[in-house]
Amino acid sequence: MMNIHILSLFPEMFTGVFNSSILKKAQEKNEVEINVVNFRDYSGNKHHQVDDYPYGGGAGMVLKPEPIFNAIEALPPSQGTNRRIILLCPQGERFTQKKAEELAMEQELVFICGHYEGYDERIREYLVTDEISIGDFVLTGGELAAMTVVDSVVRLLPNVLGNAESHEKDSFSTGLLEHPHYTRPVEYRGYKVPDVLMSGNHAAIDKWRKQQSLNRTFTRRPDLLDQIELTSEQECLLKEIKG
Amino acid sequence: MMNIHILSLFPEMFTGVFNSSILKKAQEKNEVEINVVNFRDYSGNKHHQVDDYPYGGGAGMVLKPEPIFNAIEALPPSQGTNRRIILLCPQGERFTQKKAEELAMEQELVFICGHYEGYDERIREYLVTDEISIGDFVLTGGELAAMTVVDSVVRLLPNVLGNAESHEKDSFSTGLLEHPHYTRPVEYRGYKVPDVLMSGNHAAIDKWRKQQSLNRTFTRRPDLLDQIELTSEQECLLKEIKG
Repeated sequence: MMNIHILSLFPEMFTGVFNSSILKKAQEKNEVEINVVNFRDYSGNKHHQVDDYPYGGGAGMVLKPEPIFNAIEALPPSQGTNRRIILLCPQGERFTQKKAEELAMEQELVFICGHYEGYDERIREYLVTDEISIGDFVLTGGELAAMTVVDSVVRLLPNVLGNAESHEKDSFSTGLLEHPHYTRPVEYRGYKVPDVLMSGNHAAIDKWRKQQSLNRTFTRRPDLLDQIELTSEQECLLKEIKG
Repeated sequence: MMNIHILSLFPEMFTGVFNSSILKKAQEKNEVEINVVNFRDYSGNKHHQVDDYPYGGGAGMVLKPEPIFNAIEALPPSQGTNRRIILLCPQGERFTQKKAEELAMEQELVFICGHYEGYDERIREYLVTDEISIGDFVLTGGELAAMTVVDSVVRLLPNVLGNAESHEKDSFSTGLLEHPHYTRPVEYRGYKVPDVLMSGNHAAIDKWRKQQSLNRTFTRRPDLLDQIELTSEQECLLKEIKG
């Protein structure tokens, strides 16, 4: 079972997300245990202060080192040999599916969610093992980034996804964007499902899907094509697309 | 006031996030109104079915068009001239701070959060105005992506952030990663705050921060340096860093 600890000043933010859908099921099946800690409880000062003014001046408040060091040292003893301590911040390594797969192999993950202007640099330098950013945008705090990473990691754990949510054909697992999907009705407001999908010709359907997947990747995310080795069939289909 | 509508099969996921911190304050100040709709209520069939098998075969279920078209048509009449209908999906345009700034100018945003294998393509083609992806990783559903986009947009609305959370010096607003921050104590477990920050010499502090910011960007995200125009001071500092 994976152990996840989350340090946050807003533990109530996590309730809805962690008690719904796949994350709920994963906990019920004992594939993961998630523990949310309010690090304000570890401030070490009677006013429960967790932030203070920046040395050198400037706007905004900075998270103090003590509450975070203390909260991590108060966690139950590590089960495995390796405890990944992950800081969510815009300066971190960009989170990708590959990183999700890597983290899914771990036994214990700790996430530190900041708020306000930033973290005291000593947290970054002397405590954390990983810094992760989910993208080039600014959030109110690290909480949504932590939930995002947790969701994408936990769904990769054994026995978590049922057939209906199979991750074998996930976007990015093939390195390409997905082909379009269609379901009933066959005609909706005058918009029809492509004939090939109704043909029963499995070879033709397979080819159409491969073409669509390549075409969509080529049109929207050509950078992804540089990151994978195409099969000779894909090379050939791509040549047709490029015309 | 901005109006945000969210279509999801898991409305309870949003409660904790939308009732905390800045998002809570923004609603209390009437800068934004957020309305979460369960599109299962608009299935148009007595079994409240929202998904079905894919035409052409394959694993996973596909979200049907009717519940989503119906749910959007049942929203209160649009206030502004423009209603952005945003699909969260891995195939979408990559979300960035620039996109957050663009969306923060709108009066009305609608977010469609999928689950399962995918959306019927007709939703994408004939209903939505924008497709957004928060990154190259797979989530259980679009809910966390929607919360992420909402959080980064709402914090940019007028009067939402106080001084403590000023976004003028956000990461990405300058195009560079932030310099390190330090606060009290001046020495923690033997780790000291850099002398320059204690010097009271504002010019030296300013120079140190600019150097650190450039150095961190150069080390971690050199791609960001290609996207901005450096000042001659920055050019000079960068030359020193590159040695």
